Amino acid sequence: MTQTEATKTASSQSTHAAAETIVNAALSSSQSKPRRSKYRHVAAYHLKQRHSSLSRDANVTPSFLGFRNLMVLVLVAMNLRLIIENFMKYGVLICIKCHDYRRQDLILGSILFALVPCHLFVAYLIESAAAGAAKKTIGLQKKTAEEKEYDQKVFQSTWPYTAFLHTANATLCLAVTSFVVYFYIHHPGIGTICELHAIIVWLKNCSFAFTNRDLRLALLNPSADPGLPEIYSSCPYPRNITISNLSYFWLAPTLVYQPVYPRTSSIRWSFVAKRLAEFAGLSVFIWLLSAQYAAPVLRNSIEKIAVMDIASILERVMKLSTISLVIWLAGFFALFQALMNALAEVMRFGDREFYTDWWNSSSLGMYWRSWNRPVYLFMKRHVYSPLVGRGWSPLAASGVVFALSAILHEMLVGIPTHNFIGVAFAGMMFQLPLIVLTAPLEKKRDPLGKTIGNCIFWVSFCLVGQPLGALLYFFAWQAKYGSVSKMRP
Amino acid sequence: MTQTEATKTASSQSTHAAAETIVNAALSSSQSKPRRSKYRHVAAYHLKQRHSSLSRDANVTPSFLGFRNLMVLVLVAMNLRLIIENFMKYGVLICIKCHDYRRQDLILGSILFALVPCHLFVAYLIESAAAGAAKKTIGLQKKTAEEKEYDQKVFQSTWPYTAFLHTANATLCLAVTSFVVYFYIHHPGIGTICELHAIIVWLKNCSFAFTNRDLRLALLNPSADPGLPEIYSSCPYPRNITISNLSYFWLAPTLVYQPVYPRTSSIRWSFVAKRLAEFAGLSVFIWLLSAQYAAPVLRNSIEKIAVMDIASILERVMKLSTISLVIWLAGFFALFQALMNALAEVMRFGDREFYTDWWNSSSLGMYWRSWNRPVYLFMKRHVYSPLVGRGWSPLAASGVVFALSAILHEMLVGIPTHNFIGVAFAGMMFQLPLIVLTAPLEKKRDPLGKTIGNCIFWVSFCLVGQPLGALLYFFAWQAKYGSVSKMRP
Repeated sequence: MTQTEATKTASSQSTHAAAETIVNAALSSSQSKPRRSKYRHVAAYHLKQRHSSLSRDANVTPSFLGFRNLMVLVLVAMNLRLIIENFMKYGVLICIKCHDYRRQDLILGSILFALVPCHLFVAYLIESAAAGAAKKTIGLQKKTAEEKEYDQKVFQSTWPYTAFLHTANATLCLAVTSFVVYFYIHHPGIGTICELHAIIVWLKNCSFAFTNRDLRLALLNPSADPGLPEIYSSCPYPRNITISNLSYFWLAPTLVYQPVYPRTSSIRWSFVAKRLAEFAGLSVFIWLLSAQYAAPVLRNSIEKIAVMDIASILERVMKLSTISLVIWLAGFFALFQALMNALAEVMRFGDREFYTDWWNSSSLGMYWRSWNRPVYLFMKRHVYSPLVGRGWSPLAASGVVFALSAILHEMLVGIPTHNFIGVAFAGMMFQLPLIVLTAPLEKKRDPLGKTIGNCIFWVSFCLVGQPLGALLYFFAWQAKYGSVSKMRP
Repeated sequence: MTQTEATKTASSQSTHAAAETIVNAALSSSQSKPRRSKYRHVAAYHLKQRHSSLSRDANVTPSFLGFRNLMVLVLVAMNLRLIIENFMKYGVLICIKCHDYRRQDLILGSILFALVPCHLFVAYLIESAAAGAAKKTIGLQKKTAEEKEYDQKVFQSTWPYTAFLHTANATLCLAVTSFVVYFYIHHPGIGTICELHAIIVWLKNCSFAFTNRDLRLALLNPSADPGLPEIYSSCPYPRNITISNLSYFWLAPTLVYQPVYPRTSSIRWSFVAKRLAEFAGLSVFIWLLSAQYAAPVLRNSIEKIAVMDIASILERVMKLSTISLVIWLAGFFALFQALMNALAEVMRFGDREFYTDWWNSSSLGMYWRSWNRPVYLFMKRHVYSPLVGRGWSPLAASGVVFALSAILHEMLVGIPTHNFIGVAFAGMMFQLPLIVLTAPLEKKRDPLGKTIGNCIFWVSFCLVGQPLGALLYFFAWQAKYGSVSKMRP
């Protein structure tokens, strides 16, 4: 065997003979020397110095793709095991009849939903009045600058009344809903839907009022470039103050009012159907998960929390984290991908960017900017940027943003569960320090920094924050009412 | 806001404002129009049609790197949970004094180890006799071809005797060890070490005999190019028939005899120390794992197996699979990376390719060729390639290979545990169909095929095969002896 052939063989071995399976070696046998040699037992298989591929001496580090596959398989196996274990422990816990929502809840819920359009109508009346006043002002507008300015001032002075009326109207709507949900709607699910709808409409109301105020001001001094977006030109103020325009905004999947939105040319009903099917499927999936897996874990952890056994609580939170994570991901997809896209398609709403790739967030700030775009854009447009414009420090401004959304979160969770325990509030406020801490990681060029930031996000938010929150609210609920649905013994 | 600026803003948003954190928006506020506009509440955030990044309409699919990180975190969390759970259930199970090996086991073990060199010495005597005969033949060699051929024939006829003696010698060594281990060494650990050593020496013996036979034949007709590897030229037959040469082969980390091996120039003792430290550390790690985690799972599954409750057995196997997988990986690294490299360094053995990247195997055949190179090379050189050379079909030849290694596996597991239940044998034989089935996947160009093959490998081998085997042998052991170490109640 000549040296060259030797090295050939050696190398073909060092690539662990990828070219030849034991099974079809006959084919490859023509290539590798040992087979052709007259004396098969003398073939030299150790021909040159080689390093183990895992040694540091090795000049090439092998790929570890196989271990990624293994990781996925282990995850599947572990969860399959937990499913079997759970089944053997509890049997089937899913029971449609067991669920007790009261007729009262449904009736009150529908009434609350019916009330909302009325408030929107009031908002419309307020705006049209203001618009009328503005038009009058323009009508009797004189040429000289100081007179213009006087008009401006006069008009400015009217804003507080408009603002007051809007606030009264919007807040009344929210207050009534919250009151009814907290005191008269027992079922947390129905309560959450009502409260969520009320909060959304409240935000839309604010956006509507603020935007139209600025449009009015822009209208009153056309000389100074108001810097209005081109897109608005197709429907200039006050032509946008119509019932149809407002109701479109009410139903459109956004919290930011614009007289004009980018629209799609037509409705693809097949698209709508698919998205709704996704939504339905995921809702059932989530329900099954919570009934079969989350509920028992939560129930088992009650006494653990009662006696404050830290190790057990930790164990519970970890056991819960996997389930709550899956529920969270499914819920996110169901709402922000499936439902919102379906709604947008029906409304021919063009801008479907309801989220960006928040799962890659390398900082908490990035996450909060990317997972829920509608709310983020509202906060940015109507809270953050105006405050910064008035010379607030960015940190203070975002402090206000998170304080506001902390209150809304607490309302959203605390009111339907009839427990103001402030965990949601605290959780939101706790984001600020985390954001400040992780902000540097986001700037990092190297992927390691980003990975660390991403891990901090997942752990703090999905693996600890959420399950812990769920645990505490469930505990508070149990302490107040006992089980929400009659469970089989 | 002009169109260009608008698109600028829009795009800066569509990259979810990665450039600006809420916290330091002041910096970036100079870039994005809304902040500079006189009327902050009119900024158009919905400027153009955009798709949700998860929709199929989206032109770019986002990266999912974040989910890889999440996967790792969930794995860690789940296992941490299992550790806590295990601790709360069982407390600390590790107990050094509890382990009962008997003085007899140790004594017999050392005797068996001492016996091996004697057999090697016998092998040396046989070979030197054969070498002497060969030399004589050459001495009285005539010139004519037919006389040469006659000599050849004469010599050929002597091979059976040599072969018989070698077989007797090698097999006696193996038989004695197996007999003693099976009947007199209770402790499975000590038994395994003795049996393993005996099997290794048996293989080395075979390789030694076969190689020298072919070297002899090559010596006897130098005319026809024997195709001997160049590397042997530094020590041509019969100069390699020495005690030192043989004992080097005995201790060298290979099963394939070569008169000459690639050697390193010097021994790096620091390297040796590190590898041995790794080996020690991993051994302790493995011991802890099996004592604290594997043992209870195994014990709990006894009655499940007894009553053949399939669901429970499945659940047990899955619970065991994670642990056995970790033990398996640690064990692989401890033996093939740490220990063998240490040994090779001490022996200045150059070829350290004891394994290649088997974890990426896209077929079972690939795995068996890459995870244990020493055995693979032995089988290839002394069993597979000779058989193929004699015109056997590759499949039949590899059938023989796996049958042989199946027997050896059964001996290695069955004898020390005093249970010939044939599971190891069956497991090895079962590899053949799997190899045939997965061979096509290996050929596949597309990564998907390879991934599927890799997953089949992991599942069949690590997630099901091994834990199931361990379960069954443990069950057999328990049925025969009860617990191997006195466990605390």
